[in-house]
Amino acid sequence: MSERGEGLAGELVEGGNVLRQRVYFEDTDFTGLVYHARYLHFMERGRSDYLRLLGIGHRALAEEGLSFAAVHLEVDFRKPARIDDVVTVRTSLEALSGARLTLAQRIEVDGTLLVEARVTIAMIRADGRPVRLPPAIRTAFAGAQ
Amino acid sequence: MSERGEGLAGELVEGGNVLRQRVYFEDTDFTGLVYHARYLHFMERGRSDYLRLLGIGHRALAEEGLSFAAVHLEVDFRKPARIDDVVTVRTSLEALSGARLTLAQRIEVDGTLLVEARVTIAMIRADGRPVRLPPAIRTAFAGAQ
Amino acid sequence: MSERGEGLAGELVEGGNVLRQRVYFEDTDFTGLVYHARYLHFMERGRSDYLRLLGIGHRALAEEGLSFAAVHLEVDFRKPARIDDVVTVRTSLEALSGARLTLAQRIEVDGTLLVEARVTIAMIRADGRPVRLPPAIRTAFAGAQ
Amino acid sequence: MSERGEGLAGELVEGGNVLRQRVYFEDTDFTGLVYHARYLHFMERGRSDYLRLLGIGHRALAEEGLSFAAVHLEVDFRKPARIDDVVTVRTSLEALSGARLTLAQRIEVDGTLLVEARVTIAMIRADGRPVRLPPAIRTAFAGAQ
Repeated sequence: MSERGEGLAGELVEGGNVLRQRVYFEDTDFTGLVYHARYLHFMERGRSDYLRLLGIGHRALAEEGLSFAAVHLEVDFRKPARIDDVVTVRTSLEALSGARLTLAQRIEVDGTLLVEARVTIAMIRADGRPVRLPPAIRTAFAGAQ
Repeated sequence: MSERGEGLAGELVEGGNVLRQRVYFEDTDFTGLVYHARYLHFMERGRSDYLRLLGIGHRALAEEGLSFAAVHLEVDFRKPARIDDVVTVRTSLEALSGARLTLAQRIEVDGTLLVEARVTIAMIRADGRPVRLPPAIRTAFAGAQ
Repeated sequence: MSERGEGLAGELVEGGNVLRQRVYFEDTDFTGLVYHARYLHFMERGRSDYLRLLGIGHRALAEEGLSFAAVHLEVDFRKPARIDDVVTVRTSLEALSGARLTLAQRIEVDGTLLVEARVTIAMIRADGRPVRLPPAIRTAFAGAQ
Repeated sequence: MSERGEGLAGELVEGGNVLRQRVYFEDTDFTGLVYHARYLHFMERGRSDYLRLLGIGHRALAEEGLSFAAVHLEVDFRKPARIDDVVTVRTSLEALSGARLTLAQRIEVDGTLLVEARVTIAMIRADGRPVRLPPAIRTAFAGAQ
């Protein structure tokens, strides 16, 4: 993994992460607005960068045969983003159990709430079966709360 | 719009639509499974093709300054799909109000349920503001139930 | 892999494959046209389905630690596709060497040429290094010419 | 457009732009590598941010009924990127005619060249027809060379 990503992963705040991302061509559709599934991409980047800043990297996990997978998702789409906007993705830990993490996420533009979501993720093995969260991950989040 | 899409839009069944779609490279991620947001793409194709078979086309709507937008989404991810799979997307109308449609959707592979979702969509104008569903759309769905 | 994909992979024609695909929301951008990189997705689906109909599946290759990767690409974008269009992807084998396949691809709507491309692909191992094409693949294409 | 995107658009260098971007889940496929079409996304972001730093915004162009479209593309894929990598996208102006811009682009990780491309873009109207580049855009690039 490149080590030259300083500043790209947003920043840790109390209990969570804040990441700014640009809306590019690829995020929009013919209605002129951002395509609904693209907000899930922005939120996934926020979750990945939250984990990254807690010291948890996807590549290192993959080398142990582990990865994260979404289990449940609820999303309210309130207002649309458009080309050239800079969205702010706010991610915070809502619950941590033996096998799952629940994160609350918000996407804003200039302080206006666009999208609100709750996402539950679990850790899985290469065959798709869930496993308990490794102690290192539980510890990382415990320190973040 | 090309008129040569016979058979590509799945088929109407009682109260809904059934669409089969292939899992290609673009749908998978480095974990070897389908990326979670891609299931939303499969479901959106199912909704678009359900509308299409009811006689409602996105391009014709756009010419009137109208389009559909997701308002609320709940998804349970139960089992993963993989490269080369053929997924079956089942879409059915759950509720229809003056301004919103709620659709129940399921994604299956070989009869096994992978993803279950409930999606509420509204009609919006080019500025992103919601409008009441046009009578033609209400009629199309009324006939479908 | 699901075995119920009959008809989804297009059809073999002399020296190649023809696949029809719908343009959905996800393929368009705020200009109202299909996003340029999405044509590569349509072409990749055409290549995958050509291979599929020749008996070559990505999942089976992956179980041997092999996959295809694009090496070189040239694309002319002549006219745009739009939402609801049905595009026809025509793929034909142009050259086959010990380690590489070159395919000529065209995307059309209603007989009008939109995109023309030449794509060279190689087989790689999980570490990204190229390997010679397995005899079974050379034989499959030899029969296709 | 949000005005709070400082630092997100990379930086202008002599004759071009340099943009760093993270590889996320969405960019990879089941082979464990970045999906070939995703490199086009990284390059498009580089082009958009180069234009942005020269004072040219897609939203402002759209309000005049104008947008950029890819006309021709040549890409050499030399080495793959992987999850968690930070790629550097280098964009430079290679040629400027009355109606077209040709840009040379490179994607690197830690100084290693992964992808090399030449992209020609034209300005089009909403109906997809090309128009001459507006003087403001020609002037912006003339100053950049």
